Amino acid sequence: MPRSVVSIDDLTSDEMEAVFQLADRFLAEMATPDRPYRVQGIAKIANQSILATLFFEASTRTRLSFESAMLRLGGQCISASDPSQTSASKGETIADMVRVVGNYADAIVIRHPLEGAARVAAEYAAVPVINAGDGSHEHPTQTLCDLYTLRAAQAEKGRPRSIHSIKDLNVVVWGDLRHGRTVHSLVYALARLKARIIPRAAPGCELPEHVGSRLKRDYHCIPLTKENVDDGLPPDVDVVYMTPEEPHQLALFDIRMQTQLKGLKTVDALYSTRLQLERLATNYAGEYPAVDSEFLKQKRYREANVMHPLPRVDELSYDIDEDKRSMYFKQAAYGVPVRMALIASLLELHPALAASPVAATGRYPEYRRAGGIECTNDRCVSRAANERRYLAPRFWIVQSGPPILRCVYCDVEQQPGAYGAVPTNKFVADLATWQEVNSEDLIFFAGAAEAAKAGYEPRKRKPRKKDVGGELVAK
Amino acid sequence: MPRSVVSIDDLTSDEMEAVFQLADRFLAEMATPDRPYRVQGIAKIANQSILATLFFEASTRTRLSFESAMLRLGGQCISASDPSQTSASKGETIADMVRVVGNYADAIVIRHPLEGAARVAAEYAAVPVINAGDGSHEHPTQTLCDLYTLRAAQAEKGRPRSIHSIKDLNVVVWGDLRHGRTVHSLVYALARLKARIIPRAAPGCELPEHVGSRLKRDYHCIPLTKENVDDGLPPDVDVVYMTPEEPHQLALFDIRMQTQLKGLKTVDALYSTRLQLERLATNYAGEYPAVDSEFLKQKRYREANVMHPLPRVDELSYDIDEDKRSMYFKQAAYGVPVRMALIASLLELHPALAASPVAATGRYPEYRRAGGIECTNDRCVSRAANERRYLAPRFWIVQSGPPILRCVYCDVEQQPGAYGAVPTNKFVADLATWQEVNSEDLIFFAGAAEAAKAGYEPRKRKPRKKDVGGELVAK
Amino acid sequence: MPRSVVSIDDLTSDEMEAVFQLADRFLAEMATPDRPYRVQGIAKIANQSILATLFFEASTRTRLSFESAMLRLGGQCISASDPSQTSASKGETIADMVRVVGNYADAIVIRHPLEGAARVAAEYAAVPVINAGDGSHEHPTQTLCDLYTLRAAQAEKGRPRSIHSIKDLNVVVWGDLRHGRTVHSLVYALARLKARIIPRAAPGCELPEHVGSRLKRDYHCIPLTKENVDDGLPPDVDVVYMTPEEPHQLALFDIRMQTQLKGLKTVDALYSTRLQLERLATNYAGEYPAVDSEFLKQKRYREANVMHPLPRVDELSYDIDEDKRSMYFKQAAYGVPVRMALIASLLELHPALAASPVAATGRYPEYRRAGGIECTNDRCVSRAANERRYLAPRFWIVQSGPPILRCVYCDVEQQPGAYGAVPTNKFVADLATWQEVNSEDLIFFAGAAEAAKAGYEPRKRKPRKKDVGGELVAK
Repeated sequence: MPRSVVSIDDLTSDEMEAVFQLADRFLAEMATPDRPYRVQGIAKIANQSILATLFFEASTRTRLSFESAMLRLGGQCISASDPSQTSASKGETIADMVRVVGNYADAIVIRHPLEGAARVAAEYAAVPVINAGDGSHEHPTQTLCDLYTLRAAQAEKGRPRSIHSIKDLNVVVWGDLRHGRTVHSLVYALARLKARIIPRAAPGCELPEHVGSRLKRDYHCIPLTKENVDDGLPPDVDVVYMTPEEPHQLALFDIRMQTQLKGLKTVDALYSTRLQLERLATNYAGEYPAVDSEFLKQKRYREANVMHPLPRVDELSYDIDEDKRSMYFKQAAYGVPVRMALIASLLELHPALAASPVAATGRYPEYRRAGGIECTNDRCVSRAANERRYLAPRFWIVQSGPPILRCVYCDVEQQPGAYGAVPTNKFVADLATWQEVNSEDLIFFAGAAEAAKAGYEPRKRKPRKKDVGGELVAK
Repeated sequence: MPRSVVSIDDLTSDEMEAVFQLADRFLAEMATPDRPYRVQGIAKIANQSILATLFFEASTRTRLSFESAMLRLGGQCISASDPSQTSASKGETIADMVRVVGNYADAIVIRHPLEGAARVAAEYAAVPVINAGDGSHEHPTQTLCDLYTLRAAQAEKGRPRSIHSIKDLNVVVWGDLRHGRTVHSLVYALARLKARIIPRAAPGCELPEHVGSRLKRDYHCIPLTKENVDDGLPPDVDVVYMTPEEPHQLALFDIRMQTQLKGLKTVDALYSTRLQLERLATNYAGEYPAVDSEFLKQKRYREANVMHPLPRVDELSYDIDEDKRSMYFKQAAYGVPVRMALIASLLELHPALAASPVAATGRYPEYRRAGGIECTNDRCVSRAANERRYLAPRFWIVQSGPPILRCVYCDVEQQPGAYGAVPTNKFVADLATWQEVNSEDLIFFAGAAEAAKAGYEPRKRKPRKKDVGGELVAK
Repeated sequence: MPRSVVSIDDLTSDEMEAVFQLADRFLAEMATPDRPYRVQGIAKIANQSILATLFFEASTRTRLSFESAMLRLGGQCISASDPSQTSASKGETIADMVRVVGNYADAIVIRHPLEGAARVAAEYAAVPVINAGDGSHEHPTQTLCDLYTLRAAQAEKGRPRSIHSIKDLNVVVWGDLRHGRTVHSLVYALARLKARIIPRAAPGCELPEHVGSRLKRDYHCIPLTKENVDDGLPPDVDVVYMTPEEPHQLALFDIRMQTQLKGLKTVDALYSTRLQLERLATNYAGEYPAVDSEFLKQKRYREANVMHPLPRVDELSYDIDEDKRSMYFKQAAYGVPVRMALIASLLELHPALAASPVAATGRYPEYRRAGGIECTNDRCVSRAANERRYLAPRFWIVQSGPPILRCVYCDVEQQPGAYGAVPTNKFVADLATWQEVNSEDLIFFAGAAEAAKAGYEPRKRKPRKKDVGGELVAK
């Protein structure tokens, strides 16, 4: 199977740095003093390879930047950008679509409203798949541009031009942290690179629970709150995520840690985001935080690079467009060389990526079975009527006792309420004992009612000593 | 006028085979063991020629496969794929559109909801036109992919890799035979190649009458029914179309013909199709036949290649995707080399096609006149308000006494109810005598009422002997 | 800042001729006797440069002809053609959009429903911008095709193949002169080139007032009406615009001028246009003038070239398509070489354009200020909620006493009703004295009420002699 980039975790830090060094080279080749992105002498290395861009959600920027990148490499593009005009409107599944389009193109870029859609595409396509945004889930190539911008900003401040310069930066992520997929991919990367994440969510737009959970579980992030910090936590910040050097240092952080927080007095980067109105059920009633020239006069932000994935609405004032701290147009501009480098790497035109992927999230045992528990996220691809024709629910068991299941597609976590053994058709509602069942036979249920509905019966056992009175207990 | 492909009949069998041999070459040049469709060393023979893809109906697959084919040839594409965003929404006619776009491109691919639209496009464009589907009428390039797949399947079974290996195959066409244009082009080709067509329509989705009529008239197909077959007709099949070696053998089939049907006990290919929901006025209430692994266990289908034009909904189960008889993904994949070969041929980059077209359907006398009879098909291009500005009704007179008119654009047939002579302004309602009028003066009407409405009067003649009582009869 | 073409006035006449000579060369290289627009040996001079086509309104023709032109030059295209699928639907402004897309492409073609949108795009993009139609405002590249067609028609009539052959031609512009942006750009060019403009508007579709005003102000056009012409004005023509050789000859035209009108007895070109239904609030009730073979039998039109920007509806009959005077399909065909030449010039692949633009409309003093008077045109880009985040109202002061303001974006003119001085917070409602205020301090208001609403107070002055009774007057 070819390498794909569905989550930012599909690239190791070293691979990211290799991609960035290739982007540095492309950028240098393209830039001239007066017209910074005019192609000069780039080898047409893609040699008429074809990139398919399949966009099932509104986009100009992302699609055009991918297409520009492919064309700058000497490649070609085919594109479907109007959901209502595609065969998806005839009921075609993601799996079928990418199996077919994989014959027409050498790589596929997909944007889709269903969370996990890109993962499904990567599993079924014969060619590399790049996730250009799947619902509120992830948007890894935006994060690559963000990290490349942060890396460039550090170089301008005299630090090495390397992804590792991002370590220990204080990064405020601000605005709609709930629906903004760009933020989700970004905080995973920041956690991995050991930057400090300072979330300042608009009311009601906090980081989703599963994102916080993944920060802790996968990157060993420690959420510092007012309770475990004497002082030093900035006003109106409830939590700061920081990552210890090594997972085994985790225990050290159980003490109060004012020392580490001294560094929080200045902000290195302020990442503002648009309210994702299109993902809200109702209008937004809260006050949405805005960055403008007045705001940036605060001492804390004197050296802060202002970033934004664009498009902006009112949360980023036009009065700071000329401010030298404003990086958002550079961030957009870097989209071309960074995506050129990523495409070139995935097409194996450059050896930035290892031949076999490092399955960053593959470190947990997997559970996959139809008929039992399903993902609780109704925007998850595994819940869509069309996709259920072939997709079985699939989870990582990220914690074993009691079990916590993380959906492989959308990352949403849940605790099952019962488990059973398929050959016996019996279930048990006490999760303490689930590891007694062989993994090939194991089936989880949301609860006893769902198990019964699926035709399973409570497991009856001989009364044990503790079952005084001989009553049989359905476990 | 350049060659165009509007109907599958626009290519002779030998031309199809020549196109397929070119596709074989392209396929061999593209394929590598690990990545079967990656371009390797294809000569960029199209040399920056431009293909325009004009899609006035939903599509991903077909449009992208054409564009991929053109790009693989070294050409370029321009594309209009959203009907609501095109100048058609300003009332532009098909004739004007292709006359203009013919200046922008070297060939045009058109998909349009009106039946016969591609024929009009081909008549007015200065460049070759390829029909990518016109309403429920035809979809000849899908049929080319289907035939190429059948041809490849025969080669795998040890028969010659030639279109003529399709002769005598038993092909079940299954599902929505009424609205599915792919089926219509397919059965014409199968009839011409002398395969046996075994239609198994979903209830209410039978082959349209005019398709059956064209099978009989143009390809001399014989519909075998329970009445003229002793036994041997498969259960739940009402009719099988078979084509005699030579038209003059037709008479031989008037006897009961159990011999010929022995071959029907095995099915060589099963062509399943999706219910064309978007062409139904109401929801479909019937039960729609589905192919799944259980179904394929029947002995009759042991060697049957399962085909489907995709996208599928529920009529083709995902549980046979890995079955070696399943050809539908190959069928889709073959779209690129087959379309490459067709485009290269039409652009005269390869001599697969003869310089002057064989007008396969041009074998009947033509009738063309405004003011008289019109096509009865309200989805026919000749009936659309915009197109009537310049299009006159036009028919082939496929039978002379009494006359049957087949619309040149959409193939729907009808019997006129009256005829007249333009200079005399008289009409006659008895069709037995229509050939008395010179073809330059002839005008047909749906009936006497329509003739009167058009300002024609009944022709009065001197009383003849049989007109006892001297009464004048309006014929 | 790079050269852009937003108004036809952004090119001098000599530059237009240079572009046309380049188009002549491209046309000669492309044409072969049998297939006039097939590419033969054009140097691929664009060398993989990228053109972005951003279309926020329906189009096939214009977008495809730009894309074809860029591909014929050896360039590439990226395209966003569905407004509802772009990030504009997320509230992105024009300024942000072009600043971002300017990183992806080497030139931008934009079509937008807001009048003046292309001007804003040109001001913010780092690459050349071409206006492909902004509301009812301008469509300069259509005008280039029109002029190129007129120039070719003159060459066929034996006059020099030069834009200056357009001088003194009698051009009837016919139909919807109000909403048709192509007509607006065309009449500006005709006035500049000193052709005579004979408007024959459909009832209610007369040239907008500001177009007539610009004809008089910017090109010194003289409107000849029945009142100042003894006879000679064609029947049913109310006004003819003619441009004197030199502006200082203006006075000469104050006499009755039957001599000059003798030339009006024949029409050199008849420019018909479609009713722009999509820009009308209600259905059109009037009778719309149509050109057909009967009409063209009039002696006056014997040599008239019939032109039309297409698409047509009923105003141009199909029965003149074969008439040798009909030029509209040539006009469409010329779109490719003319746009090739324009793109090549703007990308500086050819020296047709001067390095620094001649700001044809920059000859008036500029007024730009937020908080005061705004454009009265509610389809003007400066009035759009999104764009107001960064755009201040901006006007040319085209007349000084009393002042007339022409919107820099949409050309609509108005008279302010009051003026003030920003530092004093005082306003005066008598415009006679507005030049007393320094231009840096000047603020105009629609009227006294608006000034008061903006927090300004009437300026009080000491009573002057004429103020008998000592009453203080708010000026």
